[in-house]
Amino acid sequence: MTTAKARAVDGPDKPFRVAEIKRRDLDLHDVLIEIKYAGICHSDIHTAHGEWGPVNYPLVPGHEIAGVVTDVGAEVTKYKVGDRVGVGCMVDSCGKCDNCIKGEEQYCLKGNVPTYAGVDKYGEPTQGGYSTHIVVTEDFVVRIPDNIELDVAAPLLCAGITTYSPLNHWGAGPGKKVAVVGLGGLGHMAVKIAHAMGAEVTVLSQTLNKKEDGLQFGADNYYATSDSETFNKLAGTFDLIINTVSAKIDISAYLSLLTLDGTLVNVGAPAEPLAVNVFSLIGHRRSFAGSMIGGIRETQEMLEFCAKHNIAPNIEIISADQIDEAYERVLASDVKYRFVIDISTM
Amino acid sequence: MTTAKARAVDGPDKPFRVAEIKRRDLDLHDVLIEIKYAGICHSDIHTAHGEWGPVNYPLVPGHEIAGVVTDVGAEVTKYKVGDRVGVGCMVDSCGKCDNCIKGEEQYCLKGNVPTYAGVDKYGEPTQGGYSTHIVVTEDFVVRIPDNIELDVAAPLLCAGITTYSPLNHWGAGPGKKVAVVGLGGLGHMAVKIAHAMGAEVTVLSQTLNKKEDGLQFGADNYYATSDSETFNKLAGTFDLIINTVSAKIDISAYLSLLTLDGTLVNVGAPAEPLAVNVFSLIGHRRSFAGSMIGGIRETQEMLEFCAKHNIAPNIEIISADQIDEAYERVLASDVKYRFVIDISTM
Repeated sequence: MTTAKARAVDGPDKPFRVAEIKRRDLDLHDVLIEIKYAGICHSDIHTAHGEWGPVNYPLVPGHEIAGVVTDVGAEVTKYKVGDRVGVGCMVDSCGKCDNCIKGEEQYCLKGNVPTYAGVDKYGEPTQGGYSTHIVVTEDFVVRIPDNIELDVAAPLLCAGITTYSPLNHWGAGPGKKVAVVGLGGLGHMAVKIAHAMGAEVTVLSQTLNKKEDGLQFGADNYYATSDSETFNKLAGTFDLIINTVSAKIDISAYLSLLTLDGTLVNVGAPAEPLAVNVFSLIGHRRSFAGSMIGGIRETQEMLEFCAKHNIAPNIEIISADQIDEAYERVLASDVKYRFVIDISTM
Repeated sequence: MTTAKARAVDGPDKPFRVAEIKRRDLDLHDVLIEIKYAGICHSDIHTAHGEWGPVNYPLVPGHEIAGVVTDVGAEVTKYKVGDRVGVGCMVDSCGKCDNCIKGEEQYCLKGNVPTYAGVDKYGEPTQGGYSTHIVVTEDFVVRIPDNIELDVAAPLLCAGITTYSPLNHWGAGPGKKVAVVGLGGLGHMAVKIAHAMGAEVTVLSQTLNKKEDGLQFGADNYYATSDSETFNKLAGTFDLIINTVSAKIDISAYLSLLTLDGTLVNVGAPAEPLAVNVFSLIGHRRSFAGSMIGGIRETQEMLEFCAKHNIAPNIEIISADQIDEAYERVLASDVKYRFVIDISTM
């Protein structure tokens, strides 16, 4: 058993506090990771606040984890002490269902084991990356390429794969027009990745405040959705729209921006249902789809892709004492573009 | 100018009356068709009742048209007098936009010209198939294969292509599990076509009342959606769901029946938006899509497919005097499975 220092919340409205949590003794295929950096994802906030259903507190969030292997189980073959590794949104799955066999463990038919707020195969609650150590079975650990620093690697494990996977699945590339709705943590990764894939990239943001950043990230065009002329001008334009906004938006208006056979993919989910005008789908055989993170193999592929194309998130490093403040700033969209906790301050 | 006998309505709540309408003189590429049979589609009712927006009355509905060519324009090359032909939901399009060039005239970027309640390139209102004659440009006329009788051919021009196109586009075939929601005019065609394509077909109907018919049409399974156990039992089952129901249903419950990467396609559109729980999409990378009729080339392909597989709709032939009564019966779901007007009674 390893004792890890962590930051935990005790309820939906509670601040983070210093905590100690136990990490299990290494099973045959387990890897002990000393965490160096952990990103702050909007999902952490939803979960910590109990907005996505009941949570067993105390809770240690964090599923954008980058660190170094410090011990391995007796039969571990993929990693050795000193390896630079990452862990994303899930730490296990059944491994036997159709989806797991396809390498789509995120869609495990028995439900994957989330990195925090889940229950592992030993019946224990899972606790996430706002902590100094974590134990994960080697199949759910990925290798961080040498030319990606650990601090910027962390957000790739959720924001990176969550946007890479649908861009990859729906064929973003040369000749394709891709729009990204929202230029936050996920959105700015989507722009960088879609641009590197060779697509023509358009940002659709509420205002033009971040236009300069968006163009620098690789966007070819940038429009304000608060300007209703945007929707007239861009009707029927895009092959693929990645919607990174979890709030309730007028999804039918965005669907109308798709071309024939175009797809709008939500990578976040608002708590309330979205009202879809079916005529906006039928008119040009459009699709409204959803996508959730990515499989482990695809996560490794995404890391290699980012290494090859020198893609890294723009981050703001904070200390463990600043988590509450960071949450407030995320909720106010006041972050460029991802907070990453320096775990050495834990 | 040809004078055609027709049946028209003068307002949303008005009964059908005998009418005379003018059909234009043949332009160079026009075909004059003596209509033998016209199907009654639910869209006719929506439009006649003004439910899909304002209509210029008097209106002659009908877009499931089968007949015989009786005259051709000077430069017509595809058809000659005596040919057995059909006309579906559209009679023209721009012919020059990206979608028209792809053969997807139904999605013409300038808007196709609907067979009725539209305006043609001469600026005249279009009037549909509840009439003895129609003039249509040859590119929007299809050939009815010899072994398909004209009475059963009529419903193929809308109900047939509307279901064939999405089944074809989303790859229904051997190894695929396809569900059809609703066993009406469109639904019974979807079952027959999906079965002929080699898919495993399941009907999802409100009750088991039509189960025997459904199995005879080629369904492998038949479930009542009024039984909530159906949704538990079939969760995550289908690769493709064709929803033929235009009413407002709990679409998220149906989306949960899709497997990984499955698609639910609406071929009808309720006037009100549908509430989509985005979690039901994200959970298994599902898609909610729409499809509208099919292109002219694909309509011809569908007719050949039906000829090859001996597929025909089940119809009930009525006289022109029975249209009002037929509308009431369609609204009461009291039709097995498509009304077809014998135009000789006009």
